[in-house]
Amino acid sequence: MSASDNDVLKALRSAFAPHALTTDPAELDAHAVDKGPLEHWQVHPPRAVVFAESTQDVQRLVRLSAEHGFALITRGAGTSVSGGANSTEGSVVLNLTRMNQILAMRPEDEVAVVEPGVINADLNAAAAEHGLMYAPDPASYRTSTIGGNVATNAGGLRCAKYGVTRDSVLALDVVLADGTLIHTGQATFKGVAGYDLTSLFVGSEGTLGIVVGVTVRLRHLSPHTETIAAFFEELTTAAQGVLEIGKARVQPAITELLDRNTMLALDQAQGSDLAQRGNTLLLIQTDGHGAAIEAEIIRDVLRGLGATVSDPGSAESERLIELRRHARGDGIATEVRVGEDVAVPRSRLVDYIRAIEDLAEEHQVQLKVVAHAGDGNLHPTFSVPSSELSPSAVSETTADDDAASPAAPEAAPVTIDPSNLDPTTVDAAESDLPASAMSRLHAALDGSVRLALEMGGTITGEHGIGTYKLRWLDWEQSAEVIALQRRIKDVFDPECRLNPGRAIL
Amino acid sequence: MSASDNDVLKALRSAFAPHALTTDPAELDAHAVDKGPLEHWQVHPPRAVVFAESTQDVQRLVRLSAEHGFALITRGAGTSVSGGANSTEGSVVLNLTRMNQILAMRPEDEVAVVEPGVINADLNAAAAEHGLMYAPDPASYRTSTIGGNVATNAGGLRCAKYGVTRDSVLALDVVLADGTLIHTGQATFKGVAGYDLTSLFVGSEGTLGIVVGVTVRLRHLSPHTETIAAFFEELTTAAQGVLEIGKARVQPAITELLDRNTMLALDQAQGSDLAQRGNTLLLIQTDGHGAAIEAEIIRDVLRGLGATVSDPGSAESERLIELRRHARGDGIATEVRVGEDVAVPRSRLVDYIRAIEDLAEEHQVQLKVVAHAGDGNLHPTFSVPSSELSPSAVSETTADDDAASPAAPEAAPVTIDPSNLDPTTVDAAESDLPASAMSRLHAALDGSVRLALEMGGTITGEHGIGTYKLRWLDWEQSAEVIALQRRIKDVFDPECRLNPGRAIL
Repeated sequence: MSASDNDVLKALRSAFAPHALTTDPAELDAHAVDKGPLEHWQVHPPRAVVFAESTQDVQRLVRLSAEHGFALITRGAGTSVSGGANSTEGSVVLNLTRMNQILAMRPEDEVAVVEPGVINADLNAAAAEHGLMYAPDPASYRTSTIGGNVATNAGGLRCAKYGVTRDSVLALDVVLADGTLIHTGQATFKGVAGYDLTSLFVGSEGTLGIVVGVTVRLRHLSPHTETIAAFFEELTTAAQGVLEIGKARVQPAITELLDRNTMLALDQAQGSDLAQRGNTLLLIQTDGHGAAIEAEIIRDVLRGLGATVSDPGSAESERLIELRRHARGDGIATEVRVGEDVAVPRSRLVDYIRAIEDLAEEHQVQLKVVAHAGDGNLHPTFSVPSSELSPSAVSETTADDDAASPAAPEAAPVTIDPSNLDPTTVDAAESDLPASAMSRLHAALDGSVRLALEMGGTITGEHGIGTYKLRWLDWEQSAEVIALQRRIKDVFDPECRLNPGRAIL
Repeated sequence: MSASDNDVLKALRSAFAPHALTTDPAELDAHAVDKGPLEHWQVHPPRAVVFAESTQDVQRLVRLSAEHGFALITRGAGTSVSGGANSTEGSVVLNLTRMNQILAMRPEDEVAVVEPGVINADLNAAAAEHGLMYAPDPASYRTSTIGGNVATNAGGLRCAKYGVTRDSVLALDVVLADGTLIHTGQATFKGVAGYDLTSLFVGSEGTLGIVVGVTVRLRHLSPHTETIAAFFEELTTAAQGVLEIGKARVQPAITELLDRNTMLALDQAQGSDLAQRGNTLLLIQTDGHGAAIEAEIIRDVLRGLGATVSDPGSAESERLIELRRHARGDGIATEVRVGEDVAVPRSRLVDYIRAIEDLAEEHQVQLKVVAHAGDGNLHPTFSVPSSELSPSAVSETTADDDAASPAAPEAAPVTIDPSNLDPTTVDAAESDLPASAMSRLHAALDGSVRLALEMGGTITGEHGIGTYKLRWLDWEQSAEVIALQRRIKDVFDPECRLNPGRAIL
């Protein structure tokens, strides 16, 4: 069942006030894509965008979607780097950013209740007033919403110690495909009544229901942190350092590994001299009341491996970790690149990095690697130089939201302007590149994903499948699992109106 | 579709060797019930018990179940305290305790892969050789299996810091209702490919599939722990202490609260003098490299509230926490009691305990309370004295596996002997008690569950719904959620052959 544009727009206009609804072409274009690569994706601006201000608004729109049979693409800040928020043909976009109230902050229970449009950083700022934090910290935390974080089960730097989004979500309010509002989970840390629907919704990329309320567990904002920068001659030794820290039974809050090419990129952007001081950099932060003790153990362990280790209280280490945290994948106009998000068992970090270095050489593409080394989640970025770009367009393929490729703050980032994209173009990035360069880039990407799976890993540690990674999903999942997921989708959304074409095959 | 006993037994005998199959009445009786209360439950010994030794055995039995239409009740050690492992009429019990191999121990990755019949304590012993632990620690950890822990999403004492079973399960191998074997999840700490089927299986009480392999995350076994015993005059102050510890940004590994009646019971069983030293006892353990620092902060906080606090290194504190940990709910023949398992937001601990004290008085039942105070999970035990027992039988209603009611070790526990139970008896416990005593006990239980829900809590923090708590499930879950769960069950097990009659309505 599909309705004409006129019918749908008429229904929307009678249901929503003008300030809550737009069909302005620029707005439609802005809601057509997210921060993911556009390869393999046809851009289809939506028919309209609805800015919901209440659960009732969401229910009303969902019921119109059921009545008129249009697809509903739910979106927060649109910071997905996997195309999870791209609109589809004939769809209406539901923008939840106006549902941005912190409904309850209960510091004694270490619990908060928020609307889905609350920005991660805003929740953290509110929690910090009570000495608490919301632990999941994706690189987009200054702009991304809790609803989006829930949809993708977002990770970040602190996951090895504090877990991913799923581990911080206690309960959800969800509007189902027929407009019904349900509540899942408990407001308590423990609760085992019935099936874990909460975890089923977390990470389902909005395909099972629309999250309109999130009860989160907060954690202690540590009064003490210690930051360590350790330079290694050999990548192998740095990765060994990660394992040795584990053997010393220290669980850092943050353990980031940066390879030589990442250090060179940082030097170029920041004027630093990191690459002169080693070939691999480990950035580590400890927290909690034992932070100083743990940092001392880590420094001893890493010095024992021959690393050059920063002294306690090093301001540079603090600066480096902030740089790493805030690094965004935009701003470099001289290359076409795609960042990946695999995870491997952490004992395989070295093997994996060595193998993709070989792969990059084989396919004549450039590679730089950063990793959340504590949990084996890697963000390799593969690129071809802009010298291979066709002169007709400067477009960019960015999926490395979380990779450390900082531009100097004053540099204007090169971003995709959807209004310049022809919706009928199959692949903007491909159209701008000679086929040979694009096929080399794809070969390297495919190979890197295969290698992660061969080493017992996964195709996506924290960015989600979205639309971009669908082509790799059956490399990881069996036909039986794919069929089971499809049947679960059918239970929740039999007409496939909620965020169709992403998350599952 | 239901087959005659003869057909089923013939099929089982042709599929399984004699050592893997029994129809011995004593074995059938032993597999008919678990450690939960038998009220509201008709005891139906199974037709047969199959002891699977491999995934293939499980698949073969599941396919026979599909062919002949018999219900399959999967069971580990049978330590459920909610009737989650009770057999049903005409069922076959699948006993997984022989699938007890640790298939992989990967200390560098802090990951292990185990068969479902591995006992929690055995996994912990194997992990301890590498300085690691498997964090979930239900009171039954010395006998319960990882498969059972997964089925119930088991908790324990360390959950506020280390999470529940779900937080330690990375991946599962599951045999579905048609005999298909699937793998869910990832061997890495992070992974967001597709729906979170792993979490859906965890806590589903074997109703969606049969877990035949579990990949778990291990944690650091702390080289340092500090244990604190703090005696308070007032329960209110003790509960305030729990909140003040949080405000001091200390996250203890263990925070147990014992009320006066629990202390009296301990004194009676152990010859101690706890009740002379206060009316409420907090037992706290810190771990990690900051254990000593954290313990000092806690001692200061609690002394500031007027508590009598143990000195550092107190042997008695260590002994008390071990006593609490190992306390089991059996062994007292002088009362009929039911232990509960609600959870409330921890700021409501005092309100909740005060309210159920009133409830106990109102209904003239006895009450003692222990709580995993760090996460608001309470185990109140309601009882009526055995003087009200009918002289015809000494039977017991035990659900407080996790409540601190230790028997002296030499005392023979009074347990239910299923061979003495008439399968047609509606309710063994009811038949042994005057109606008035039983209705008072029920009124108190019902009231305690309602109060937990009114305070924003849950009817079960960690024991699961099983068969026993089904009657309260629709107090917590809406009709829409109940319907949704039923439809999910239909996707996985449309003929309702896997553990029917538990976990969901």
